[in-house]
Amino acid sequence: MIQYKAFIASSLDGFIARTDGSLDWLTSDEFTLENDDLGYSSFMEGIDCIVMGRITFETVLTFEPYPFGSIPIYVLTRNSDYQFESQHPIRIFQGTLEELDSILLGNQIKNAYVDGGQLIQSYISKSMLNQIIITRIPVLVGSGLPLFGDSHKDRKLKHIQTSTFSNGFVQSEYHL
Amino acid sequence: MIQYKAFIASSLDGFIARTDGSLDWLTSDEFTLENDDLGYSSFMEGIDCIVMGRITFETVLTFEPYPFGSIPIYVLTRNSDYQFESQHPIRIFQGTLEELDSILLGNQIKNAYVDGGQLIQSYISKSMLNQIIITRIPVLVGSGLPLFGDSHKDRKLKHIQTSTFSNGFVQSEYHL
Repeated sequence: MIQYKAFIASSLDGFIARTDGSLDWLTSDEFTLENDDLGYSSFMEGIDCIVMGRITFETVLTFEPYPFGSIPIYVLTRNSDYQFESQHPIRIFQGTLEELDSILLGNQIKNAYVDGGQLIQSYISKSMLNQIIITRIPVLVGSGLPLFGDSHKDRKLKHIQTSTFSNGFVQSEYHL
Repeated sequence: MIQYKAFIASSLDGFIARTDGSLDWLTSDEFTLENDDLGYSSFMEGIDCIVMGRITFETVLTFEPYPFGSIPIYVLTRNSDYQFESQHPIRIFQGTLEELDSILLGNQIKNAYVDGGQLIQSYISKSMLNQIIITRIPVLVGSGLPLFGDSHKDRKLKHIQTSTFSNGFVQSEYHL
């Protein structure tokens, strides 16, 4: 069974980006930590592929240099005409999360990184997310794209560990 | 200057109660901690009075026994007809937070506990809240009364400390 894992930053009031997608509140100078990537590279070492929505993917493409090296990326979109050519291992996928799961299993994927707020919500609502590492940024932004969405039933998580950082970030790992 | 302090539990997705005010997700048996009140009595030892909104107050009144002993309670309401008789030191107040601040100063109050989601939001929006201790419960409830409200400007907080508990609660103290 594939382990689906999320690693995401959230404002203290639960937003992962402003309404226009910007992350300026997260990347301000005062939050810079020298020689500390908040456990991100360690997390990524255990990851075999990344699953992300198209909007997150197009944001990632603006990063220089391209951050994911040789790790396969599956970009989910409902748009059947969507195409993308790249020298990187990027695959466009228009099916369901369950169909993708079968494909990933066939590709010997064991650990998939789920990136992007909407996709994390989709995996949670289908009870397919196994782990989430949330880094709480000590700022209230008031509005934006929420980390968690509406749901119709309670969902309990198991707290695994919490770390704090000198810049005020609080990072908690939960299993679902 | 009076220090205004909040001590509140929130679901992982940022709700302090369900839409109907219920807290069943917070008080479930599996979260029971023997001989540990999550620092609440220690927090209350430094408190001279409690400020709460009428709705929170009327919820508190349903608790048996009455939980606040001899500590003065100021109940804020916009309803000028609201009255309440009690053997406890409860005062109904219809003015602004600034007017209440003057009264509390006159009464030699140094540390006030701000209770209730809407009131916490009001104190934050007026830049009058000094401290908030948030206990994150490891459950997603999907909808309800939010801890934080909309705001039109960013508000940075200073992280002071975080504690974890064996039942999965994560408690963080911030100064504003």
